This record gives sequence, C-alpha cells and structure tokens, in this order.
Amino acid sequence: MFFASDNWAGVHPDISANLTRHAAGIATAYGDGDLDRAVYKRFNEIFEREVAVFFVATGTAANALSMASLNRIGGVAFCHAEAHMNVDEFGAAGFYTGGARMSPVPGPLGRINPQALDGAIKRYSRDLVPAGQPMAVTITQATEVGTVYTVDDIKAIAEVARRHKLPLHMDGARFANAVAATDISPAEMTWKSGVDIISFGGTKNGCWMADTVVVLNPDVARDLRLLRQRAGQTFSKARFISAQFEAYFADDLWLRMARHANAMAARLAATIEDAPAGRLAWLPQANEVFAILDRTKAEKMQGAGAKFYEWGLPQSFDGHLGDNEAIYRFVASFATTAEEVDHLGRMIA
Amino acid sequence: MFFASDNWAGVHPDISANLTRHAAGIATAYGDGDLDRAVYKRFNEIFEREVAVFFVATGTAANALSMASLNRIGGVAFCHAEAHMNVDEFGAAGFYTGGARMSPVPGPLGRINPQALDGAIKRYSRDLVPAGQPMAVTITQATEVGTVYTVDDIKAIAEVARRHKLPLHMDGARFANAVAATDISPAEMTWKSGVDIISFGGTKNGCWMADTVVVLNPDVARDLRLLRQRAGQTFSKARFISAQFEAYFADDLWLRMARHANAMAARLAATIEDAPAGRLAWLPQANEVFAILDRTKAEKMQGAGAKFYEWGLPQSFDGHLGDNEAIYRFVASFATTAEEVDHLGRMIA
Amino acid sequence: MFFASDNWAGVHPDISANLTRHAAGIATAYGDGDLDRAVYKRFNEIFEREVAVFFVATGTAANALSMASLNRIGGVAFCHAEAHMNVDEFGAAGFYTGGARMSPVPGPLGRINPQALDGAIKRYSRDLVPAGQPMAVTITQATEVGTVYTVDDIKAIAEVARRHKLPLHMDGARFANAVAATDISPAEMTWKSGVDIISFGGTKNGCWMADTVVVLNPDVARDLRLLRQRAGQTFSKARFISAQFEAYFADDLWLRMARHANAMAARLAATIEDAPAGRLAWLPQANEVFAILDRTKAEKMQGAGAKFYEWGLPQSFDGHLGDNEAIYRFVASFATTAEEVDHLGRMIA
Amino acid sequence: MFFASDNWAGVHPDISANLTRHAAGIATAYGDGDLDRAVYKRFNEIFEREVAVFFVATGTAANALSMASLNRIGGVAFCHAEAHMNVDEFGAAGFYTGGARMSPVPGPLGRINPQALDGAIKRYSRDLVPAGQPMAVTITQATEVGTVYTVDDIKAIAEVARRHKLPLHMDGARFANAVAATDISPAEMTWKSGVDIISFGGTKNGCWMADTVVVLNPDVARDLRLLRQRAGQTFSKARFISAQFEAYFADDLWLRMARHANAMAARLAATIEDAPAGRLAWLPQANEVFAILDRTKAEKMQGAGAKFYEWGLPQSFDGHLGDNEAIYRFVASFATTAEEVDHLGRMIA
Repeated sequence: MFFASDNWAGVHPDISANLTRHAAGIATAYGDGDLDRAVYKRFNEIFEREVAVFFVATGTAANALSMASLNRIGGVAFCHAEAHMNVDEFGAAGFYTGGARMSPVPGPLGRINPQALDGAIKRYSRDLVPAGQPMAVTITQATEVGTVYTVDDIKAIAEVARRHKLPLHMDGARFANAVAATDISPAEMTWKSGVDIISFGGTKNGCWMADTVVVLNPDVARDLRLLRQRAGQTFSKARFISAQFEAYFADDLWLRMARHANAMAARLAATIEDAPAGRLAWLPQANEVFAILDRTKAEKMQGAGAKFYEWGLPQSFDGHLGDNEAIYRFVASFATTAEEVDHLGRMIA
Repeated sequence: MFFASDNWAGVHPDISANLTRHAAGIATAYGDGDLDRAVYKRFNEIFEREVAVFFVATGTAANALSMASLNRIGGVAFCHAEAHMNVDEFGAAGFYTGGARMSPVPGPLGRINPQALDGAIKRYSRDLVPAGQPMAVTITQATEVGTVYTVDDIKAIAEVARRHKLPLHMDGARFANAVAATDISPAEMTWKSGVDIISFGGTKNGCWMADTVVVLNPDVARDLRLLRQRAGQTFSKARFISAQFEAYFADDLWLRMARHANAMAARLAATIEDAPAGRLAWLPQANEVFAILDRTKAEKMQGAGAKFYEWGLPQSFDGHLGDNEAIYRFVASFATTAEEVDHLGRMIA
Repeated sequence: MFFASDNWAGVHPDISANLTRHAAGIATAYGDGDLDRAVYKRFNEIFEREVAVFFVATGTAANALSMASLNRIGGVAFCHAEAHMNVDEFGAAGFYTGGARMSPVPGPLGRINPQALDGAIKRYSRDLVPAGQPMAVTITQATEVGTVYTVDDIKAIAEVARRHKLPLHMDGARFANAVAATDISPAEMTWKSGVDIISFGGTKNGCWMADTVVVLNPDVARDLRLLRQRAGQTFSKARFISAQFEAYFADDLWLRMARHANAMAARLAATIEDAPAGRLAWLPQANEVFAILDRTKAEKMQGAGAKFYEWGLPQSFDGHLGDNEAIYRFVASFATTAEEVDHLGRMIA
Repeated sequence: MFFASDNWAGVHPDISANLTRHAAGIATAYGDGDLDRAVYKRFNEIFEREVAVFFVATGTAANALSMASLNRIGGVAFCHAEAHMNVDEFGAAGFYTGGARMSPVPGPLGRINPQALDGAIKRYSRDLVPAGQPMAVTITQATEVGTVYTVDDIKAIAEVARRHKLPLHMDGARFANAVAATDISPAEMTWKSGVDIISFGGTKNGCWMADTVVVLNPDVARDLRLLRQRAGQTFSKARFISAQFEAYFADDLWLRMARHANAMAARLAATIEDAPAGRLAWLPQANEVFAILDRTKAEKMQGAGAKFYEWGLPQSFDGHLGDNEAIYRFVASFATTAEEVDHLGRMIA
C-alpha cells in the first residue's frame, strides 16, 4: 500500500532491459552519441515538431534551469499560488536565476485564473522606477492537486502571456498523466496551445532518472546548453538517459504506464466516494487522489503500513473540514496494483 | 506642488552646513574616522542601547543587505503582500541573497496579520523533503500605504516570529515619520518590541544620501560588514554620511522634519475630506495621503503642474472605486509648504 | 582506438546487472531507502571511518557543491593553476558559491607547490580593507596531467592548509586510478593525510553516473544536504546510484577496473617510449598518457579513426616542442583492450 | 604626513560649495533632474562623444557592475595578475556576475602583456566541452603600482581584445592622475584607443563620493541601468553626485587636483632618490610612490605619525630586497602639501 509518491516506485522492466542492452561499447560523451541523437529525433516525433532536448538531473533542476533560460534582470515569473516550483523546490528557481521572483497568482484547484494573471503582470508595467521585469508564466500539468488544464484553459493563459510578450513554461513532471487522462496529443497540449518550453519528466512515470527540459519554441531559451553546463548537469554518459527514453517512448509505454496510474487513482477515488468514513476533497483527474479523512483513522492506517501523507490546505479549497479531519494525498504509479488499491479502500471504508 | 515623493526634496540647510564644516582635513577612511565613531555613538543614544551601524547606498540596499545578513539556504522571508522590498525593489533582495524567496502575507492597510503570518511560516515546517527554510519576518514602518503599526501590532508579530525562532526586520525608510506620528521612542518602536534589525533611512527625510542598516540585536546579522564589502558599498569617505547624521540627530532635527511632513499630510487629508470632488482612500497616519479622484480631474491637475502618481489598488482595499476613479498618492516632505498644500487642495476641491 | 576520455566507455556488466536486480519494488525516495543506507555504510568501510555521502549529478557538480559547502563571504579557494575546477568547469564553482574566487597556485606537473600555496594564502591575511577570505585548498588526485600526489605531498599541503585553518578538498574524479596506482588505502590517501572532503567519482571508472561528495571530516561542509537540495540534485530514485556503488565496491571491482585502465596506460606509454616518431611529455602515473607527436602524424591517426585530443601546454611544462609538434592526451578506461593499445602504438611508431 | 591613501583626504572647497548651492529646491529623483542632465552632457564634452553615465556607490561597485554588464554564462574576464578588481575587491565582481572568473595575465609593473593576454584568451577557444566564455578584458589606468599605460600600450591590448571580439574595460579609479600625467585627452586615452567602458572615479581625487561607470561604446553594457537598479544603487537624490561633478569639471578642477597630486608624488620620489636610506622600487608615473625602506626605519616613521602602508611584493618585481627591507606605498592627493612631503622626506633621509 504505497501511495506516498510515484517516485517510490522502481523502474519498468522494459526500461531496465534497454539500459542493459546499451551498457557495453564506446559512445561519444556529453549527449552527442548515436543513441542520444536518435532519442532527440524521437522527441521531435512525440511533439510533432523540431524541439531541443536537454537532459537534466531532476524535475526541480528542469524547472529551475527553464527559469534561468527565460531570466531577465529583476525578473518576475508568474505561477499559481501553490506551484511546486514556488513553494516546494527549496528556492531552486531563485538560486538558478540569481534571484528572480515568483509572483503567485490565485485560481481554483491548482489552475491559474487568466484574469488574475493579467492583473498580476500589469502590476509590473508601471513606467516610473522599475519594480521588476516580467519574464515568464508557468503552469503545472497535471497540477499540484491532481487536476488537469484543458486545452482551452491553456490557450486562455497563453493568450494573456502572449499579450504581455511573455513565454509560457509548463512544469510537466506528470505530463504523461495529463496526456493519458485527456487523450490530447503532446503537441496540442503544448506548443499548439501556446506553450514554449516544458519540463518533461519521466522519473515519476517508470524511469530511473529521466528529466528533461524540452524547448518547443526555438526563439526562447537559447542559452540552456550553457546554463546546464555551468550548473554541472551535462552528463558525460548521457546515453544512460537516452536508453531510458528509447524504451519509454517505444510502443507507447509511457502512456500505457500513465493510463495505468490514472486508472488506479480513479479506482481509489471510486472506493472513497462509496466509503462512509471518507470523502474526496475534489475530483481527481490524473494519478493523485486527495481525500478528507479523520486524523485518527488516517494515523491508524499509517500505523498498519499504508504509506501516504497529509496535505496542506490549498488556498483555493472551499470545502468544509471537520474538527479532526485533514486532507491526505494518495499517489498511484505505473507499479500500483488493483490489490493494493482495494486493500487501502477496505482500510478507509 | 511637488507630491510625487519625499525624495524629490533637497537637503535641510543644517545638514548641508555640516557637510561643509567637515569638508576639509584628513580622516581615516572606510568609516573608522573620529566623526564616524562619534556618530555611531549617537545612534546608540537614539536607540538607547549599543547598536551596530552600517552606512549603505540606498534604502533598497539597506533592505537587501539586511536580508542577505539573515539569509539561509533555501531561505524564505515573510513580508506583507504589498511590501516595497518584495514588489518594488526590482528583485534586489533576491539578488543579494542569491535567490531567497519573499512569502507574501495578507493583512489590512499594509500591516501583516499575525495569524496569517503564523500559518505562512508553518507551511514550511513540514518534515519530508525540505521546501524552504524560514529565515526572517519583515515589516515596514511607516507602511507602504502611509499607515503605522502600533507597538502592540509590532509585539504581536514579534511574538509569532520569536515562536518560530525568526529574526524580525523593519524597513524604516520612513521610520522618522512613524516615530513623529506616534511619539513612541525609537527603542520602544524597535528592539523593546522585538525588532532585531532595521533599515534606518534619512534620505527621504531631509538628507542627501543617508541610508543605514542598524543591527539592534547583536546575535543576528553578524556578517553585515563583509556582505557590504562584497557589495561594493563600503564608502571610503564615510564621513560624508556621518556629517549628515550628526546634523540630522542634533536638536531633534530628524523628528522636527518628520513632524512637519506629517502635519502637511494631515493638512492635505483634511482638505480632501472636505472636498466634494475627492475622498480619502483611507486615513493617513504619517506623511503619505492616498486619495480617490476622478481620473479626468487628476490628469488635469497633473497637466497644471501638480506632481503626484496614480497608485495600484492594494489587495486589502475594501472601498469602492467609481468607473473613472483611481487611487492617487501624495507624499509630503520636510520641504513641503502649507501654501503648496492649500494650492493643491484648491485644485482638488 | 578510443582514447578521447574514460567517459566514452559504457558501464561494467556487474554494475549493469545490479541495476536490473534492483529495478523492481518500492523504496523510500530521496536516498533514505534500505539499499541507500547499506551503501552509505559501505562507504564507511571503504574510508575506515564514518563519512557522509551525497550523490550528485556530475563530477563538476561534486566540485562545485563542495566549494559551496566550504564557502565564505568574499571567499578565495586555492587550487593548482591548471585545476579542472578552475579552468575547465565553465565557472560552475563560481556559480554555486555566488562568486567565490579560485586563486591559482603554481607547481610542477599538476601538483601544488606547498611554499607557493603558503604565499598565496598569506596574500589575503592583510589587516586593512579586507581583500578576501581564504576558504579552502583543493587538490586533484590523480591530477589533471595524469600524475599522482604521494602521501607526503598531500601531508605537506594539508599542513599549510591547517596552519591557515583551511579545509582541504580533493577532486577525486580519478581517485580510483590514484589508489590503484599507489596501493595506498583510501583512508591514508585522504583523511589520515589531512583531506576533509572529496569529490569521489565512479562515472569515469565503469559506472553510468555515480558521482558523490564524501565528507570525511564531520566539522566541515555541514550544509551539503541543503545546498544539494537547492541545486535540484536530490535524486528521488536514489537507489539507481546506490545500486551502481553496491556493485562498484563488491569484490574490489572499482580497483580492478582502475588497475586495468592504469595498466593499459602504462602499456601505451611503453610503446611510445620505444617509438621513434613520438615521445612522452612526462611519465604517466595513472590512466592518462601525454605524448608529444608531430601534428601531421596525429591528424593522420585521427583521420584513420583514432580518438584522442590535443592538449594545451601546461604552465609547468619545461620540455621542448618541435615546430610542428604538440602534446596529445590518451586516456585508458576499464574497457580499453590491449589490442586497441597495440593498434594505436603501431600507428604512432 | 598622510600618505595612506588618497581617499583619506576630504573634499575640495569648490565641490563643497557647489553642493551647498544645490541643496535647496525640488528636483526629479533618480537622476532625471535638470542638473543631472546637464552633467551627463558635460561628460559628453569631456569624452568628446555621446556617452552613458551611471552614478554608482563606489569604485568597487563601478568595476563590479561593469563586469556584470559585460557578463556571459561561464564568463571569463582577463585582467592583470595584480588587478585591484581581482585581488583586492573582496570578490565583488564575482558576486555581481553570479560567478564569472577573472583570469590573471602577467606583465611588468602592473601592465598586461599583450602576447600573454592573447594566449590566455586562446586557452578558452577549444571546441570540445566548453570551459568558459571569454567576456572582457580589463586594464587599470593609472595602474595599481602607480604606472601608466601609454596610448600605444592601450592600443596593443585593444587590438588583442578586438581580435577575440571582447570589450575592453578600464578601471579608472585614478584616471584623472593618468590624464594629468600624460596630457593625453580622455577621448584618446579611452575610446579612440579601443576602450569601450570605464569605471570613472572622482572620489580619490577631491570628491566626497563620485563614482561612475561611463559607457563609451553604445554597443556594449546595455543593461547597466537595470543591473544598477537591482543592486540598489540608483540614488534618489542623484543631484548630490551631479553637483560634485559639475564643480569637478569646471575650470579643469579635476585635472588641476590630479596634477597637484602627481607633482607631490614626484617631489617625494625625487627626495627618496637622493636619500641614502631608501630607494624607489620603480619609477612613479602618477600619484603613488613605491619605495624600498628598512622595516625598522619604516616602523619608526609610522610610530612618529607618518601614515603609509607596506605593500605586497608584486609578481613582476625584479629588483632586490635586503634582509630587513620591504616595499612601502605613499599616495599623494589633491590635499597633500609640499611641507608634508618634505617632512616625510626628512624622515626617510
């Protein structure tokens, strides 16, 4: 019953096997080998256009280096008030940009409100003493609270960003889950809707360590290669990451894994909806379920070996919590089994 | 009719004369001269305890270096949502700290709400993956919207800060106006109420360039001298600043100037309250008046030579703005005359 | 004939197999799993004392984060004039420290001269206006030019560092090759000789991606965990790295691989010494050979498929270069074969 | 007998009087007032072309902000091995650039050797893994050891910089002394000889606090205004600095002061040359004299009230020091009197 996070899971056997397959032999270092180049092309196919792919150390590094590549002097990036990049990444974006600010924008259930975004950007358009230079808008897909932006949602935000001449970044640590949940293509979900650059993560979805920045719009983020070099994240044996992605994209493995995780989350959500002793905080749309439980019960479940964490109250939560109640997060992964879900469901009921 | 800002004024004649008096002769450089040492002692008297005084380039530098001196890895400082340091200083605090974040806290009329502060700090006390290290609380006195914290207000915030073992910083760019407005002593307004370090500014109140960081609690901010050195703000002929402060503190000049500025603001506020064509956005408590005017009228006044600026709508504003109305800021200084105020008043009426 | 760098090689089959073995199943993320803990203990055994181990993205990141953990305001680190960290790592150490300086110290064949080190540190001990704060000494073992410090060499440098109260860092990207070359134990090569912290790399010696900072002296580098977090290098599925090290240390695999690489370098060196058409620039002591070749011949070899690079003239080189001659570097790895070496040797002869 | 530094002197009476003259009245803040604009024009006349002038806090800030404005990712600036910016400014340039490196270049008596410069830059032009991006060359005029570059010297360095497409910066903390010593015009000394940007200082030459960056080549350093803003060095009452420069440039006051300082240094040098008990370390060319004295005698002089400091042995010093001898620096200022010089001379003799 491991629902603490999708990064507690291991690696899919196909990915592991592909690493073994590429273990021997000599290859040009630093991402210039044959396999690396083949994988970059595969990314072009996935996104239906020529993109630039940068392997980086973690999802946090992908976000922080994305911001660094969009950085301006006195820069201000606009994000959701609960954006992982802003509140959970230990200031990595600030460190990588040398001090750019994240300006929090409100919006329901993890999604930025476009009107509020517009107002927040305008705050910095005064003429007098400069207060800051808007530099980027960033959204998270799937969001931090397990919801998903529709294409229209993304387009509305992109429209505001474009009006202010700002690039649009997407934190796609769980991008696969969003694609799997909506059957919207990666291209449609990103550049066709106005996204310029994405932190595209495979680690939470069955890879060992496969985080990237993918630049979709060739007009932005031109310095990423150098910024990554300076950050000490240019991997010498990059084929280790390429081998993971080769398997990840083969036969839609990435979407199959994400669909499975989403299905397990939906199965858990259905169980909770039926359970007298718990209820959903809001409807899950990807692979994360947020449920309201009695604290005593939750602690008992944890004591019995169930792994999951209490979640802070989102600013936009407008439901009601009882005296001894709290919100808990349950994350399903490619490796979650129906048996685990049902076992957990019985504990909650 | 100059109400654009108190930093449009020149310098008080006493301060100018004192500079002339100290112009000749040789003195040890870098703030170690006799006059410098005498002025540091004067600060001790003003604050009724031994303090450490650091001359810096501007008020923004004072704030940013204060934050740098309180910095932690992954640091988060808690400030009002409209804090000048957060939204108006072009990211200086982020730059000087190498990327520390400002976490905005709500509260009415420029003042942090202590309960909201407590909640914001607790957000970072989770045990799992570290999201950030709380490093400081900062308040502005007088506030960005011309209001003043009472001693009880400060103590309530200091109590929250102390409970979380956080130092309390005060942005005192208009500290003199707050002291003059309340007749609370500098000591009572700061360390006796829990403030550990203050950006103490003289520039807006009749000096040429006289900004400092004053460390009130010797247990914090120990590296300020070195941080200032690295920032290229250790002035060689520091007596230029010392000479200003010598005159500033003589015969309570600083409070006399601040009282005058406050009185001019009050005079303007009274006029506006009586004017049919305008109204106060909220009650001013120091030297800044925020008034709601018809945009057409305001532009006409500006066209006729009155200098003042439109102000963004504060988050905490709960009044009503008519269709063509906006909030405008009027700042009085030591040099503002009653004639100017009355002239402006006639324009508004 | 791949002698471009040891990071062109793949990964040893034992390491690959161990990754596969650990691919399935759930484990606590972020380096707190059972395998992770077992591997940390293994490091204790290797170094014969309790050490703190931090997995990081690359060798450059290991160096840069080491410097960050030893950083002081206005900090100056002392390194060899040709130190990889100073001249080859794209300013990573400067970036991670927010601007600390590297002060280059001369010395023959990649090794710091202790007397010159002492003089360079003393340069910053003046009393007046502070010019900088010495923060660390760093040496590379094996050095950038394929030589090795003896224990006495290290102790002499450590003695100077200790006299100035400075921690001693070792860049051990090729530490295994140095240990294998000398049969000096890791403990003797490091903390028993005064080294406080080491960038311990496995990537160049048969791993996929296995770079660490190992803190040997518990009194230094206390903030490494937080600095790594802020740098976005806390790996969620850390067991991927642990699994590599488990196999790396089993049955002395790491030393067997390093010994092989060193032996291949020695075999190449012997061939070159006997070759009429080339000569050694200096005697190799680990797995890198620097040879003086005629440029025309070298280009012909490269044209025929031999992979190796020209090397810049080290400051300390006191030999003679003919008109059309240059220094070339040849690196052997765990995967280099005697056949490759002999093939290359025939080309040179 | 104050020869510790030219920044121990006060301010010239003309400058002081001009400050008083501009003390009253209202002016647009942040350097946009009428006086500010008039002074910017005066700079155009001094440099015989349109230039961009930025007032900053100190000479160190001028250098550091200059480097920030020329910064590149992984940037490397080339300077003399003894450049003040590199070894004496507490890492300010590294801090302001977020970690750019200074690459020290040798050369006799404080002047960069053009051939050595060319070699140092070429070190970073390798094709493989990037080691750094050359970003600027910087020279000091007058140099740190009181010598002066000729126009031919500057042109030779500029030619190397231009060949590598690098901007040329001049640290002109004592630029006035160099101009006064050579009768070469500011234009000829700078942009006509290939200098793109200069730290132009008035503080050491009779001002209170008057340091600037002057951008001579409009194609470089375009972000200086924003970088200064973020650094908290945009002075609100900028006319305080403008008033100093207005007087500084009137009737060639700046050159008259510099000529006087140079003459006093020459007078001291002549005395030392004649003194049996001391000798010049090298010939002074501006306002600094470096003399070799017996330590016992020097300490006795200091004990009797003479203010001056021992100087570290420059790398390029090829003279001989006796057992108990050291090099001492004596700096003359606009305020130094012939009586002081002669008094000091008698002590040395």
